Amino acid sequence: MRKIGVQEIEDIAVGAALLGTGGGGDPYIGKLMAIQAIEEYGEITLLDADEVPDDALVVPSSMMGAPTVMLEKAPSGEEALVAFRNLEAYLGEKIYATFPIEAGGVNSMLPFALAARLGLPVVDADGMGRAFPELQMVTFYLDGIPATPAILADEKGNTVLLSTIDNVWTERIARAATVQMGGSAMTAMYSMRGRNLKESGIQNILKLEEEIGRTIRLAKENNVNPVREVIKKVKGYQLFHGKVNDINRKTESGFAKGTATFEGMQENKGETLTLRFQNEHLLARTEQRLLCVTPDLIAVLDAETGLPITTEGIRYGARCIVIGIPCHPKWRTEKGIATVGPKYFGYHVDYVPVEKLVKEGVRS
Amino acid sequence: MRKIGVQEIEDIAVGAALLGTGGGGDPYIGKLMAIQAIEEYGEITLLDADEVPDDALVVPSSMMGAPTVMLEKAPSGEEALVAFRNLEAYLGEKIYATFPIEAGGVNSMLPFALAARLGLPVVDADGMGRAFPELQMVTFYLDGIPATPAILADEKGNTVLLSTIDNVWTERIARAATVQMGGSAMTAMYSMRGRNLKESGIQNILKLEEEIGRTIRLAKENNVNPVREVIKKVKGYQLFHGKVNDINRKTESGFAKGTATFEGMQENKGETLTLRFQNEHLLARTEQRLLCVTPDLIAVLDAETGLPITTEGIRYGARCIVIGIPCHPKWRTEKGIATVGPKYFGYHVDYVPVEKLVKEGVRS
Repeated sequence: MRKIGVQEIEDIAVGAALLGTGGGGDPYIGKLMAIQAIEEYGEITLLDADEVPDDALVVPSSMMGAPTVMLEKAPSGEEALVAFRNLEAYLGEKIYATFPIEAGGVNSMLPFALAARLGLPVVDADGMGRAFPELQMVTFYLDGIPATPAILADEKGNTVLLSTIDNVWTERIARAATVQMGGSAMTAMYSMRGRNLKESGIQNILKLEEEIGRTIRLAKENNVNPVREVIKKVKGYQLFHGKVNDINRKTESGFAKGTATFEGMQENKGETLTLRFQNEHLLARTEQRLLCVTPDLIAVLDAETGLPITTEGIRYGARCIVIGIPCHPKWRTEKGIATVGPKYFGYHVDYVPVEKLVKEGVRS
Repeated sequence: MRKIGVQEIEDIAVGAALLGTGGGGDPYIGKLMAIQAIEEYGEITLLDADEVPDDALVVPSSMMGAPTVMLEKAPSGEEALVAFRNLEAYLGEKIYATFPIEAGGVNSMLPFALAARLGLPVVDADGMGRAFPELQMVTFYLDGIPATPAILADEKGNTVLLSTIDNVWTERIARAATVQMGGSAMTAMYSMRGRNLKESGIQNILKLEEEIGRTIRLAKENNVNPVREVIKKVKGYQLFHGKVNDINRKTESGFAKGTATFEGMQENKGETLTLRFQNEHLLARTEQRLLCVTPDLIAVLDAETGLPITTEGIRYGARCIVIGIPCHPKWRTEKGIATVGPKYFGYHVDYVPVEKLVKEGVRS
């Protein structure tokens, strides 16, 4: 158990945006929300998963929708409160703690903003160890934990309570409702017991995010190469060094979908990297080689500062280093690959672990 | 109070399909559902609105979605039960009676099928006196009665509970959810008190539907012209006599939308009628004249049998008589026209009452 204040939030926001692999929302908006809540309500207690009683009711806080929309339609905090209160009323039980559903600039911060207002602790665990675009894409789904009862709440005052036969149905109906609600909605779903979170959650993820953020911050202060330091911290690989020369992005069916291409620089001169995303970066390849593919993590970093760039933040001309990070082993199981592997997203490649792609230079 | 058996159901189904102006579902499916329920559970009690206690909880039963989908995906009855039980649980109160939300082959029959199973009476009132495609298009909306809490239930076992800031938001979110649920869903919404139904509902609508159905049936038995008899019964007007020569229909955003054209016969020889619909027939015009426009009723009848033809039942070559019927005065108010008038549906004409169009031959 420890306290989370403004500096911790600043660092977590940066690390979360990196593990968010382009999705999960803008870290600037996310940290403003959390910092504002801390300044108004005081520091937040962060618990290790082991500190949560086995039968305690815990509920992740998250936002559903296209990050492109979240940029224009920042959550007020009121929706999250409504979603949690409605879920408590439905379950007839108080919520003991909250936690992030995924890594992401906004989605890692929401639990802090909400926890500060509600006086709840935050648990250091999430359901992905990265970000993914659909709501059945969580380790909880792999472990058979239902998403419903699920509440959606928008900033206008509309709420939806879903009860579905499985989590893929929750995604389908909630996504359609979210589009109508203006492209994003606050959610309260995947309510579970402390023991479920310990077994199924990805633990110490906020700690890792904080360390990533601190690494980038200190590298700047100490005048060392932040990208190299970050790669060491996350046990990742440098995939490509290049300059954005095309970006094609549209908000479609509630997702930010598109492609970015990077013209190689230095060691990658003469090559072109194509990055495909759906809220998150999902596939990186050059003309010759497949570099990294979902569920392994692809992060785009500013070549100079090492700061992560979200899909909606990619700008023409930006000099970037694209890195790859092995995903959590839960995603490399058969059900994991079926749920979030390249085929699910319509890419005609087999999943090959990034460490293998990097070593063997598999042809694309 | 009186009992409704199989013959009454047969007649109501036909009359409801006529007042359903092409929408509201196929009367054959509707009456099968109701007759099956009566045969299994016994006759149903029909109450006049005046017989319902002022503070009794009453809830209409209806189906949401494209009638083209309802044809292929007939409701099992289980969904309706789930929707009603969930609403009762949410409100913490037993439902006293049910009633149809609109006139229509399926939607006028659903309350009977459900009432038989639940042992509830049906009230002789609805919220339109015809059919309309969107769920805020009820007299209850004109009178400020909220649609929510609203339950949607599908045949797979998914349910949605909506709580929205107004009935137009209920329509938007419920429509999107319905599309995901496979194009149709059972609903329990617009719960109200007996006094609301008396003030806001359109009373004795089932009686009128039964009389229309009986008129058509007896005309056939007595060898008199059924169309002429029906027009007298509903105080309507013959608009056009013709043969279907084109039909263009697609299921889009959860609606059956399209256009049908009729080549004039006999007194209309040389003219062409264009009929535009969105689940319901909404506008009828020839090259020269506007004949009838929403919210007045447009019904397409088989020229020989006088039986109503739904939008999805219109077939190339069918000989039809198109009739117009003045709508209930509630729809001719300013809010009524704003809610269901031609401009709302994107037609660039002003609303003119059908009796005026017929007398003055207003140019289209």
